[in-house]
Amino acid sequence: MTPHLHRLPPGPVDLTSIAPDAKPGFDGKKQEGKSALFALGDELSDLQERLFAEGITGARRRVLLVLQGMDTSGKGGVLRHTVGLVDPQGVKITSFKAPTEEERRHHFLWRVSRALPEPGYIGVFDRSHYEDVLIARVKGSVEERTVESRYRQINEFEAELAQDGVTVLKCMLHISPEEQKARLLARLAKSDKHWKFDPSDVDERERWPAYREAYELALEHTNTEIAPWHVIPSDRKWYRNLAIGELLLDTLRGMALRWPEADYDVDEQRQRLLGEVAVK
Amino acid sequence: MTPHLHRLPPGPVDLTSIAPDAKPGFDGKKQEGKSALFALGDELSDLQERLFAEGITGARRRVLLVLQGMDTSGKGGVLRHTVGLVDPQGVKITSFKAPTEEERRHHFLWRVSRALPEPGYIGVFDRSHYEDVLIARVKGSVEERTVESRYRQINEFEAELAQDGVTVLKCMLHISPEEQKARLLARLAKSDKHWKFDPSDVDERERWPAYREAYELALEHTNTEIAPWHVIPSDRKWYRNLAIGELLLDTLRGMALRWPEADYDVDEQRQRLLGEVAVK
Repeated sequence: MTPHLHRLPPGPVDLTSIAPDAKPGFDGKKQEGKSALFALGDELSDLQERLFAEGITGARRRVLLVLQGMDTSGKGGVLRHTVGLVDPQGVKITSFKAPTEEERRHHFLWRVSRALPEPGYIGVFDRSHYEDVLIARVKGSVEERTVESRYRQINEFEAELAQDGVTVLKCMLHISPEEQKARLLARLAKSDKHWKFDPSDVDERERWPAYREAYELALEHTNTEIAPWHVIPSDRKWYRNLAIGELLLDTLRGMALRWPEADYDVDEQRQRLLGEVAVK
Repeated sequence: MTPHLHRLPPGPVDLTSIAPDAKPGFDGKKQEGKSALFALGDELSDLQERLFAEGITGARRRVLLVLQGMDTSGKGGVLRHTVGLVDPQGVKITSFKAPTEEERRHHFLWRVSRALPEPGYIGVFDRSHYEDVLIARVKGSVEERTVESRYRQINEFEAELAQDGVTVLKCMLHISPEEQKARLLARLAKSDKHWKFDPSDVDERERWPAYREAYELALEHTNTEIAPWHVIPSDRKWYRNLAIGELLLDTLRGMALRWPEADYDVDEQRQRLLGEVAVK
């Protein structure tokens, strides 16, 4: 699978033209897809550790994976199955909920700025600053010109991040309304899934066309060279997890990560240890 | 393996009486130990998700796993292999380094208070507030009576945490100086491990007896009913990972975690979804 397969081209966006149940670039079925994801684990882990090592020794580079999508689109599944392939020590996950009172008193980028990954880390945003141009537009909580100004502010913010060593990977998990319905019904059908359901999910679902439009506009206006959007067909959970795994791997490969060189004399340290008076 | 096997009894502590290469309660060898750890994964994941679900629905309970130990004792390995068994979404890992300037301006418990897990989460401290009674004592950066006052403050702090729903699990990863030497030499022997080595590790190693004494005193004075210490023989990495996995599992089992009940009418919501006008 070539990961740029999912990269959104510049220009107006029509989400209805992208099939949510497609599996472009992958011929296999579910089990093969799961195996293919699992097979990425070793290289992903190795590259993540190189990134972490680089961070420890003073470099600024890091990765920020932004996950957006409608309810049930599987942000949690990506965290568990794809991000879960690498050492949790090197990962910083932040789930953004409805803003708290304190967050609302600040600029909308304040809370995301505080959640950025440190150098060497892979940061993951489960929802993000994009909520402030999605739900905000759909619910009309801010004026349209404010939303448009936010697009610009987001682009500037992400450009600054890139300058500070952050590779921003933005993924929209694209599901169909039929698939969402099936997933919501599945949550209702099992008592150990009831906690995942909220009646407001159905209210939000009724605004599906408005959300789609809000996504299309947000994707179009923030699909920059430096921080492009990827639309991941997500009706098949295994394909979604694999596609994001491939994308993350491709991103890390592209960083040409190398193990840091020792900034001390290795032989001298070895001699110190070998020649020491017994430590008891 | 009965996890309370590692629970430190009250009273003075003599670490030399606990064999770092022992594997109490487990008859098997390395491969069996690794399989036994892996076999805990499903139940650990299930219980962690119940804890998370409970947190989402308003409960305050959470777990805080505190990992302490000399350099190379394997705090990172526990994070990767044991904590890595559960969904990274429900885990909050904090690695404490030498305090920053800002942290030094505050009370020593300030930075740990800010890193506590939210309700529903498993928090992990890779080093912790215990550094302030360990390295601080060894280096003499604070007076002895300050260290003693800190023991009391820690006990009060942990008692407050317990009252606020935090189950505090404290583990000291116990290795021998010989094993540390071998691990440091192994880091020096491989260029992809050089970044993990710091010449100051050898300086610290030379104070081994002072650290042991500082650990013994700290363990003794903070080994409370509500937040007891566990000393984990850690010369065998696989045993260490397994022992902490068992301890975590036992802790979660003891919490009698149940899936939250729906606070909405499940049938009504199902009807809403089934009866909706087609969403497109």
